[in-house]
Amino acid sequence: MKALVYHGPGRKSLDERPMPQLAAPTDAIVKITRTTICGTDLHILKGDVPSCEPGRILAHEGVGVIEQAGSAVAAFKAGDQVLISCISSCGKCDFCRRGMYSHCATGGWILGNRIDGTQAEYVRIPHADTSLYPVPPGVEEEALVMLSDILPTGFECGVLNGKVQPGSTVAIVGAGPIGLAALLTAQFYAPALIVMIDRDANRLEVAHTFGADACIDIARTDPVAEIMKLTDGAGVDCAIEAVGVPATFELCQAIIAAGGTIANVGVHGTKADLHLDTLWDRNITITTRLVDTVSTPMLLKTVRAGRLAPNKLITHRFPLEDILNAYDTFQRAAETGALKVIIEAA
Amino acid sequence: MKALVYHGPGRKSLDERPMPQLAAPTDAIVKITRTTICGTDLHILKGDVPSCEPGRILAHEGVGVIEQAGSAVAAFKAGDQVLISCISSCGKCDFCRRGMYSHCATGGWILGNRIDGTQAEYVRIPHADTSLYPVPPGVEEEALVMLSDILPTGFECGVLNGKVQPGSTVAIVGAGPIGLAALLTAQFYAPALIVMIDRDANRLEVAHTFGADACIDIARTDPVAEIMKLTDGAGVDCAIEAVGVPATFELCQAIIAAGGTIANVGVHGTKADLHLDTLWDRNITITTRLVDTVSTPMLLKTVRAGRLAPNKLITHRFPLEDILNAYDTFQRAAETGALKVIIEAA
Repeated sequence: MKALVYHGPGRKSLDERPMPQLAAPTDAIVKITRTTICGTDLHILKGDVPSCEPGRILAHEGVGVIEQAGSAVAAFKAGDQVLISCISSCGKCDFCRRGMYSHCATGGWILGNRIDGTQAEYVRIPHADTSLYPVPPGVEEEALVMLSDILPTGFECGVLNGKVQPGSTVAIVGAGPIGLAALLTAQFYAPALIVMIDRDANRLEVAHTFGADACIDIARTDPVAEIMKLTDGAGVDCAIEAVGVPATFELCQAIIAAGGTIANVGVHGTKADLHLDTLWDRNITITTRLVDTVSTPMLLKTVRAGRLAPNKLITHRFPLEDILNAYDTFQRAAETGALKVIIEAA
Repeated sequence: MKALVYHGPGRKSLDERPMPQLAAPTDAIVKITRTTICGTDLHILKGDVPSCEPGRILAHEGVGVIEQAGSAVAAFKAGDQVLISCISSCGKCDFCRRGMYSHCATGGWILGNRIDGTQAEYVRIPHADTSLYPVPPGVEEEALVMLSDILPTGFECGVLNGKVQPGSTVAIVGAGPIGLAALLTAQFYAPALIVMIDRDANRLEVAHTFGADACIDIARTDPVAEIMKLTDGAGVDCAIEAVGVPATFELCQAIIAAGGTIANVGVHGTKADLHLDTLWDRNITITTRLVDTVSTPMLLKTVRAGRLAPNKLITHRFPLEDILNAYDTFQRAAETGALKVIIEAA
């Protein structure tokens, strides 16, 4: 089968690889129909993720059809259409039993990291019963690819951890796919104000059409002064960090209101300064989270009910044969305007 | 009247000062019977708290008797015995209405900071109805002084913010009065393990008698290795930072379990490193808080019921005339073994 293989920092190619095989009775083999590229795949290609070794098939998002189900798989059978969660979970370990699937003792984020991933014609999914979701009828397949990772990540790590409430003031720092996913799902809770902050005018334009009340282009405007103007000097109740560099995390500290929450979503490669000297008495909360995908069933319902339109995030489509072009388009997002690119595998 | 006055960094003296006067109908004048010294008073004396100007009478803790109540004070009358909260609150502003008294628009931590404090024979208390508590019958007066600040601080900023639960593993970094207050009140929730970490063998000995399950002397033992040994390699569910320097805040980051909470209680004078590169995917929470004293009525009930014995924290007693000796004893705690020193003003 064809698969996109990581060959060490800066190196990838579309290779011919053997079909995956069942390794445990709880596994399923899924024939991929659609997958995508995540910012995290680019992190791996930069060499930022040491757990992902050369030779690995990349990616942790996708939808497909069960090709073969292990003998212990009860919820799915060959031919079922499934959504693949970026988080594999056994459902039985201590972490799974408290809903923290991201830290499953034999799962977590392993797809396209510690085991082969979804940018391929087929993928082996461990713990299939608790790591796949049935696809509801009447929902566009490519929209569902957004539910493998970015929508639950924006929602759980940003909106839920950030405690967005009716009447809240919210700033989302970073208008990439994850920031936009937070923007879409924050609106479930009727916040009073959502401000989107980025340096890419095109992405801010998109954020505007997605429901942002205000957009701040940090290439043109001082974001701290602007946030203070928009919030009568109080700062925001919730700051969602969706970039992953020290500067944006520090911006969140500068704009957070007393009693507010900074929800970190970004994947960070270095430490950052925490200004405890100004924040120790401000009653703030800072959270970090690898998505647990506990909200996937709920998000599926909102998509099915038309309350959430994740296909808005899709800007480009490529066949699997053209995946190197897809990477190029995704990496040059500032020029191409790419948000999420769909890879059609079958 | 006699009062301990701050005269700029490193300078204080016991001076003769005029009696305080009612400045608003919601004020009360309280005749102080007992007060104490807080680590925060030492911060002021180091020059760390610019809001506290020279000429200020220090301190924000104490019990006393209403000498005079303003015409709008409804809950107290002359002769009533009262506990003074370190936090003054109007009860009416937006912050007060959400229970965040620490950030009251016309109150917060003002006593012994922006207005004259309690190390004196008399003190003016603004917003008396919502900043004083009636003293319950049958409770030792000096025990109550511990409820002005350190017990609600250890409890709210440490135990509540740290989400201590039955079965939790807890590390408290710093065995000073605040750390010990967290230790006493953490036991309300039956955690599985409370580990006390300090470099003062005497304070660790005290922590042991106060109910710590294990004590780590960082002068002798690597605290990270020891915590990992005590928690089967997981780290602690709750790390309470009760010192206020970068090194202890970093220690909390090194010992926190996936899904855990670091509750900062310490007053910090500088920024600290936050290791987002290792913590971004660990699903942790970090909190800061200036005590709101929302728990004071509950803590009064636990003291009255004998569930909490705050007088354990009192090691020394001095008359107000001897307050400079009291400061000396408190500052040289490593030699004197001082925890809280009671100042008897009347």
